[in-house]
Amino acid sequence: MEETIDRGQLHELAQQLRVDSVRSAAAAGSGHPTSSMSAADLMAVLLSRYLRYDFDAPENRANDHLVFSKGHASPLLYGMYKMAGAIDDEELLSFREFGSRLQGHPTPEIPWVDVATGSLGQGLPISVGIALAGKRLEKADYRVWVLCGDSELAEGSMWEAFEHAGEAGLDNMIAIVDVNRLGQRGPTMHEWETGSWAARAAACGWDVQEIDGHDLGAIDAAYAQALAAGKPAAIFARTKKGSGVAAVEDKDGQHGKPLADPEAAVEELGGERSQRIEVGAPPAPHSYEIETAAVGRPSYELGEKVATRGAYGDGLAWLGAIDEKVVALDGEVGNSTYAERFAAKHPDRFFEMYIAEQQMVAAGVGLQTRGWKPFASSFGAFLSRAYDFVRMAAISDADLKLCGSHVGVSIGPDGPSQMALEDIASLRAVFGSVVLYPSDANQAVALLDAMRGHRGISYMRTTRGATPVIYEPGESFAIGGSRTVRSSDADDVTLIAAGITLHESLDAAAQLAEQGIAARVIDLYSVKPVDADAIVRAAGETKALITVEDHWAEGGIGETVAGVLAEAGTGTPLTRLAVTERPTSGPPEALLAAAGIDADAIAAAVLQAL
Amino acid sequence: MEETIDRGQLHELAQQLRVDSVRSAAAAGSGHPTSSMSAADLMAVLLSRYLRYDFDAPENRANDHLVFSKGHASPLLYGMYKMAGAIDDEELLSFREFGSRLQGHPTPEIPWVDVATGSLGQGLPISVGIALAGKRLEKADYRVWVLCGDSELAEGSMWEAFEHAGEAGLDNMIAIVDVNRLGQRGPTMHEWETGSWAARAAACGWDVQEIDGHDLGAIDAAYAQALAAGKPAAIFARTKKGSGVAAVEDKDGQHGKPLADPEAAVEELGGERSQRIEVGAPPAPHSYEIETAAVGRPSYELGEKVATRGAYGDGLAWLGAIDEKVVALDGEVGNSTYAERFAAKHPDRFFEMYIAEQQMVAAGVGLQTRGWKPFASSFGAFLSRAYDFVRMAAISDADLKLCGSHVGVSIGPDGPSQMALEDIASLRAVFGSVVLYPSDANQAVALLDAMRGHRGISYMRTTRGATPVIYEPGESFAIGGSRTVRSSDADDVTLIAAGITLHESLDAAAQLAEQGIAARVIDLYSVKPVDADAIVRAAGETKALITVEDHWAEGGIGETVAGVLAEAGTGTPLTRLAVTERPTSGPPEALLAAAGIDADAIAAAVLQAL
Repeated sequence: MEETIDRGQLHELAQQLRVDSVRSAAAAGSGHPTSSMSAADLMAVLLSRYLRYDFDAPENRANDHLVFSKGHASPLLYGMYKMAGAIDDEELLSFREFGSRLQGHPTPEIPWVDVATGSLGQGLPISVGIALAGKRLEKADYRVWVLCGDSELAEGSMWEAFEHAGEAGLDNMIAIVDVNRLGQRGPTMHEWETGSWAARAAACGWDVQEIDGHDLGAIDAAYAQALAAGKPAAIFARTKKGSGVAAVEDKDGQHGKPLADPEAAVEELGGERSQRIEVGAPPAPHSYEIETAAVGRPSYELGEKVATRGAYGDGLAWLGAIDEKVVALDGEVGNSTYAERFAAKHPDRFFEMYIAEQQMVAAGVGLQTRGWKPFASSFGAFLSRAYDFVRMAAISDADLKLCGSHVGVSIGPDGPSQMALEDIASLRAVFGSVVLYPSDANQAVALLDAMRGHRGISYMRTTRGATPVIYEPGESFAIGGSRTVRSSDADDVTLIAAGITLHESLDAAAQLAEQGIAARVIDLYSVKPVDADAIVRAAGETKALITVEDHWAEGGIGETVAGVLAEAGTGTPLTRLAVTERPTSGPPEALLAAAGIDADAIAAAVLQAL
Repeated sequence: MEETIDRGQLHELAQQLRVDSVRSAAAAGSGHPTSSMSAADLMAVLLSRYLRYDFDAPENRANDHLVFSKGHASPLLYGMYKMAGAIDDEELLSFREFGSRLQGHPTPEIPWVDVATGSLGQGLPISVGIALAGKRLEKADYRVWVLCGDSELAEGSMWEAFEHAGEAGLDNMIAIVDVNRLGQRGPTMHEWETGSWAARAAACGWDVQEIDGHDLGAIDAAYAQALAAGKPAAIFARTKKGSGVAAVEDKDGQHGKPLADPEAAVEELGGERSQRIEVGAPPAPHSYEIETAAVGRPSYELGEKVATRGAYGDGLAWLGAIDEKVVALDGEVGNSTYAERFAAKHPDRFFEMYIAEQQMVAAGVGLQTRGWKPFASSFGAFLSRAYDFVRMAAISDADLKLCGSHVGVSIGPDGPSQMALEDIASLRAVFGSVVLYPSDANQAVALLDAMRGHRGISYMRTTRGATPVIYEPGESFAIGGSRTVRSSDADDVTLIAAGITLHESLDAAAQLAEQGIAARVIDLYSVKPVDADAIVRAAGETKALITVEDHWAEGGIGETVAGVLAEAGTGTPLTRLAVTERPTSGPPEALLAAAGIDADAIAAAVLQAL
């Protein structure tokens, strides 16, 4: 093949990227210059010859996407920004300073960064979502370039991504794997033996190439082949960590630290440079159309018994009809979460992610980078599989809506492996999150619509079993609110609950009324943010508070309320009823009773508290 | 090849397993008979001809292990127990009843079950740990048979397991994949196309076979080949879900429910049977020896500055010397967690799991089934990747020790992706867990020893930066305790903290003393279980309490203390200082100040509270 590239010119660009990686890490006194230098040749060719990106208009929807799955190579990425004229040298040297947007790992605080990376194994699965948006929804021409590390190929999530991209035929996706042989603490499992990975990626339906990642001609040819492959393309590029500087090149013990002698290294690399290149322009954006089926707002009759998971499915199908940006993902349990009801109405916007919860959440994060509003659902218990992805989504400032069904012991005979009992705690402990736990079907629909309108990470917890409808159809519920569903002029005690235990609380209140005890019942459907005023008011107006939740005692409704009370310093005693023993299989009623969170247990707790 | 099996006899056994799957699910009114029937032939051959297991002596260390990674096929497993004479028919029909040990998904409440399954994708990686124990530590002859589903091959964790088992050459491991083509809500991604999986497993270094999973001769030959393979063996067996009963065989919509007409199905399968077989005996157990290096108990001088992560490494190396059951695993960050100090002293008992946190935790769970005491470490942030595995480990009643390093904003320039800020919340919300957060190096060593002695799931949170040693070497610290590190006869306020913020609290107390305010400082090193007495006492003896933590406000120290106060109804106001904004990169001091959890912020909060 005739070579059309100017090797000397490309080498100069690559050397600048190396020099700037050395310089920025030296200025910061920390960072990963050697992990940047290994991929400098790969990125020099990409930036100067293949990437199509208008750095002046990051909002241009026709721009390619560039995701650094190996986020620790941020010095390289920031050097590319400088080379593209997007930042100046002064800003480059602010790397890792307090207040600089050039953080240790990239975040979307930088306008050219789609998602935060730095937890390895996430950039590729997130890119699957970005590529799905282009391929399936927008029929767009943009490409998704992903720079991956070799160490992160040990993460199973990377192989979920390979499988899904292959299955979906994402020919707009190019994974560039910087196989620099050395991980943080020594050699990787496979070092430069790229054959095992290549065989696996090929088996997943990818075009695969194994190249010398410092051969500029080979890199150029590989990109050209990748773009012509007609399927997702992976380039396994053997490189040397710290390439270009003898003191660190391919040497162990040089991970994640500035070079000992940066001045000498810069000199060895040929000195500082300030080459500026014109990055290729994106193609003209084009429009696309989304089909929507007509679906009315679901409503349920008072007293009817409906599972909130069913209302999730109905409500989601309705949201899909009124908002074409709404998309849904499910982890092969759509007939349990009822996401299938969305799929039936809006098949083009439904993504079956199979039993790969990490890939499901990652795809949601990818989809929202393009303005889609993803609702991702599975059993609440299994969302715990993707916890790191949700954690990182918060750093990405992602607009991600999650739903976990089958929560708590009340699911019954399937047993503890299927019961979400830690979901409120874990998802409250996500930055900026909203945690909702509807108590009836009409409320679930209203809260779903609130989630649609809320930008950020929100979670809805739904119940497996049917519970009575207690709110009128169309009643509105705000994030951060609560409802007092039972009260009198002189309440003795306040019961605070949500979901299944709200109904147990109402039953308990009815029992207590027969004994002359007036119980206020608060539906704390918004666990985060919480309606502190209602809690403090109840603490002032009643003699004791009881929280009841189908969740572990830690981090759930009880502790949320405790936090409010302790900060207010009310002194009203609180009793927290929650699951405190390992549950087992059995009928829901038996399990609620065994956990001490059914109506009888609540009534008994009230008598003891008073 | 000459056939040595009696197909008729094996068929009768398989039919009994099918019949009993139908019967137990019918009795329960729920369960997964069709997912059991598909694998009946596979298990009939295994139980009658290959498994070596003394059901009367499950504690026999020479027994093979049988793990149902597809835990929902529990009716099949329980049918095997009946066939082996381990349970009777009456118990079989107690399936899923409240109080029965035959739960919806298997748990170790059953003596022949090693670990709980039911969250798909976990049984195989856990089995890697069981196999590692046999291969690397015990040089034992037992085999680990794992029945996997095809749906769960979508989980990346399965591919972490394939890679690790291949790398470790675990020829004692046999994965039997029941490829029944149908998942919960429809066809799987690959249906009966087993080639992609087989190619990937082969690329990971496995012996692979693709067979007809209803051909008894092919099954028998496959097991024979697997045992002779000299490497881990995977058998991809194409089967029909619900096989043997026309009404459900290979039919969609039959997942996870009893058969509509169980009597007719039993008749179609040839009626009830009560065949009892003699399962092969395990070989004679043999002994093994573990090398231990001499390592003294680490101790640090008062005032010396030492990072608790360093003490973790030192302490773990010491534990390895005094307890040969102690093993360590790390996720390719051993030079950051300092697990490398254990590796240097006890290389035979150190497991490098690379960047595969799910596999790391799973291997720990597997190792502890054989009585080993695994300590698994990574950055605290990245343990979130394995949250579902920790959740399930609690259902497995596992003895698992975890350590998360680099917690909180105080790690500094690496930025938020590397900061554990949700680890206390998420790990407190694990059944029966212990959560420890040492404030100095000597305490970290003492608490590590306490973790060694504690059976269950425990977690230690360690700090990246060096902090002053404040406790004498050898001082003892109990799980569930606390230390009042500063107090006077007339304390005005109480500061409650642990780890890095304990030192900030001490600095704040010194500042406040200059202003005539006496602050008590409590080291709440045991966040769960918590020393409620010390908190209630402080609430009674001082005018206000301030908690300070390098963690989100949800589910951490603040809410733990709030829960204690609210239940006690003390009415002493609590101020909770915690991280409430998304952190960024910068020097640790700047980030602590920005989060409002440094000494100045604490002192200001005290002035405001008083």
